[in-house]
Amino acid sequence: MTSVINVNLPEQSYEIAIAPASLDQLGQQMASLNLGKKVLLVSNPTIFRHYGERAITSLTSAGFEFASCTLPPGERYKTLNSIQKLYDAALENRLERSSTMVALGGGVIGDMTGFAAATWLRGINVVQVPTTLLAMVDSAIGGKTGVNHPHGKNLIGAFHQPRLVLIDPEVLKTLPMREFQAGMAEVIKYGVIWDAELFTQLEQSKRLDQLRYVKAELVNSILTRSCQAKADVVGKDEKEAGLRAILNYGHTIGHAVESLTGYRLVNHGEAVAIGMVAAGQIAVNLEMWTKEDAERQNALIQKTGLPVKLPDGVDIEAIIEALQLDKKVKAGKVRFVLPTQIGVVTVTDDVPSDIIRQVLQGM
Amino acid sequence: MTSVINVNLPEQSYEIAIAPASLDQLGQQMASLNLGKKVLLVSNPTIFRHYGERAITSLTSAGFEFASCTLPPGERYKTLNSIQKLYDAALENRLERSSTMVALGGGVIGDMTGFAAATWLRGINVVQVPTTLLAMVDSAIGGKTGVNHPHGKNLIGAFHQPRLVLIDPEVLKTLPMREFQAGMAEVIKYGVIWDAELFTQLEQSKRLDQLRYVKAELVNSILTRSCQAKADVVGKDEKEAGLRAILNYGHTIGHAVESLTGYRLVNHGEAVAIGMVAAGQIAVNLEMWTKEDAERQNALIQKTGLPVKLPDGVDIEAIIEALQLDKKVKAGKVRFVLPTQIGVVTVTDDVPSDIIRQVLQGM
Ligand SMILES: NC(=O)c1ccc[n+]([C@@H]2O[C@H](COP(=O)([O-])OP(=O)(O)OC[C@H]3O[C@@H](n4cnc5c(N)ncnc54)[C@H](O)[C@@H]3O)[C@@H](O)[C@H]2O)c1
Ligand SMILES: NC(=O)c1ccc[n+]([C@@H]2O[C@H](COP(=O)([O-])OP(=O)(O)OC[C@H]3O[C@@H](n4cnc5c(N)ncnc54)[C@H](O)[C@@H]3O)[C@@H](O)[C@H]2O)c1
Ligand SMILES: [Zn+2]
Ligand SMILES: [Zn+2]
Repeated sequence: MTSVINVNLPEQSYEIAIAPASLDQLGQQMASLNLGKKVLLVSNPTIFRHYGERAITSLTSAGFEFASCTLPPGERYKTLNSIQKLYDAALENRLERSSTMVALGGGVIGDMTGFAAATWLRGINVVQVPTTLLAMVDSAIGGKTGVNHPHGKNLIGAFHQPRLVLIDPEVLKTLPMREFQAGMAEVIKYGVIWDAELFTQLEQSKRLDQLRYVKAELVNSILTRSCQAKADVVGKDEKEAGLRAILNYGHTIGHAVESLTGYRLVNHGEAVAIGMVAAGQIAVNLEMWTKEDAERQNALIQKTGLPVKLPDGVDIEAIIEALQLDKKVKAGKVRFVLPTQIGVVTVTDDVPSDIIRQVLQGM
Repeated sequence: MTSVINVNLPEQSYEIAIAPASLDQLGQQMASLNLGKKVLLVSNPTIFRHYGERAITSLTSAGFEFASCTLPPGERYKTLNSIQKLYDAALENRLERSSTMVALGGGVIGDMTGFAAATWLRGINVVQVPTTLLAMVDSAIGGKTGVNHPHGKNLIGAFHQPRLVLIDPEVLKTLPMREFQAGMAEVIKYGVIWDAELFTQLEQSKRLDQLRYVKAELVNSILTRSCQAKADVVGKDEKEAGLRAILNYGHTIGHAVESLTGYRLVNHGEAVAIGMVAAGQIAVNLEMWTKEDAERQNALIQKTGLPVKLPDGVDIEAIIEALQLDKKVKAGKVRFVLPTQIGVVTVTDDVPSDIIRQVLQGM
């Protein structure tokens, strides 16, 4: 059960390798890439406790000289301050241009390690070893890296493609349920925007809210098809000139909900789930999508244990205002990704505020 | 007397426009590039006092909405901390992806503005309006951006190409003499590594140590030929895979001298001058270059008022040690750029320490 997906980009192509127990192959896989000897392994204490030793054993037996650096867990440490710690570690261990930072963790570790690697010596290698479902199917692929500004998420960052993405599905066993569900939001997203077959596969599963209820073949399919979807889109549009916008399906309203709930009450996946329900309904109201397909989407979201309603107490006018602050806003126009059928979406910045308001009031 | 040089890069090409009084054309030139309306003008208080108003008048009359941000002058403020101020200004003024940061200043302002632009929203536009000779012929071109780490220069950075480089030679009139001379070190470098005709042009001038002694045509030629040299090299090697290394002529030992004198006693241009004398002599000792050509180079350096000897009290063993710390070191090998004739250099990492020692002892 090994899948390899090629991400083809003009300047640098790389592989996403998906295989159980592949964490033990990390060093070997990296050795085949002709990287320098020095590696800085970046993680957080929880993840490091679970998987650090295996990663290190694999790296050292493949002949790498390693140093490690753990950063405190959680989105609120995704800051320039943490990046400075990585710079200090890079300096202390004399990383060279040919050296590699390895991100062993979820999206937070992946984004920070990627950004530090993008900006140390104007760019050294990074290898992504994602350990959350979200990081596996989304953040580890595509080269977006970055940290938060005190007043806004992901405002600081760079594009920096990894040299390798190594996915070991077995590490998901220790992932908390809510984190698994959050990742499933992105998986459902790929079904709606790109891969109708993935969507029907998901529909055929009785429960999707915990890893242990999901058949091994489906887990494999989820990972492979989701990574393929992201790789396809990114390969066609590395720097977000156009197509890549479709990956923001559910994220327009999702981001507003996340930010209005202080990134605490509702996590990213949950916010995206709410955002997909909203975007789907906007598409239905604009007569771009059928009510039936929107209901299929919402049923799938519910089966994953994700919310389909706005959290209590979120002010609808505040959401509409927050949309204006989104970094994708161009000349004051809010960009929406809207489905036209399962597997196909379109991008528009012509959604009247009244429709948005009406849809949110109905949720 | 307007020159336009095209820098052709796979992803984005741009123009270097050189013309007296072109500062007043800034807004107009930018308007032709189809940039967003919002501009953040970045400078330091001294430069802003001299040229801020003209830049702003030009920007506003071309219809741009501008905000400005000044950072304290000097290399010691080229830090992540200053970048954070630019991020704050970007946030406050709600810069969008289509917005532009304009760097009005020397290399310090240019490098910082470039880095902030590279990393705000994962990359917004930057326009370089260099005001020192060094920035005009070197730092504003080529897309290298960055800041210093407390323990090392330019360790943090990114490649980010400008959308336009606008050079108004008239602003050099207010530049302190020592800064002019520092820029001349890079000009002489281009003569030695790339453009023998520039070299002979310089030789024909009686004095080169102050702008007012240099004929207007020569100033124009210096700017045009130097920018062309840098554009040629960068166009062939955007990300420092190979050829671009030749731009480091004089910089290997130069960087060591700069760092050992605490970046105060000796400035960058002076250090590069010393480094060129050393590299030239190494080439002579290795029988790669003639003594005569080395002497022509050294005469030119002296005529510019730049040093040709090591500053008192710099320890030669300390220089040799410092070379090992250079970020261009690969697997412990120090890379030298050595001339083989005026206008032609070669890159090698096979210079025995004994030769380096011997050359430095002779200086
Ligand atoms: N770069 C991109 O393209 C992109 C895309 C989407 C999201 N993101 C970013 O990703 C981040 C969210 O990532 P995330 O959802 O992975 O969250 P996360 O990285 O914070 O991880 C969630 C939690 O799970 C723990 N954890 C991770 N793997 C584990 C494992 N195998 N076993 C046990 N515990 C484990 C972590 O310690 C953490 O507490 C956000 O900062 C978001 O901005 C980036
Ligand atoms: N990015 C690159 O490729 C590259 C290449 C070479 C150097 N650099 C960087 O450039 C920096 C050095 O740049 P610099 O030599 O321009 O120094 P600088 O930017 O510090 O400017 C030198 C001094 O001149 C003043 N000044 C600038 N223009 C003036 C004017 N027209 N009139 C009066 N005063 C003026 C400034 O206020 C400053 O005090 C270093 O940080 C170096 O690392 C970068
Ligand atoms: Zn997402
Ligand atoms: Zn230089």
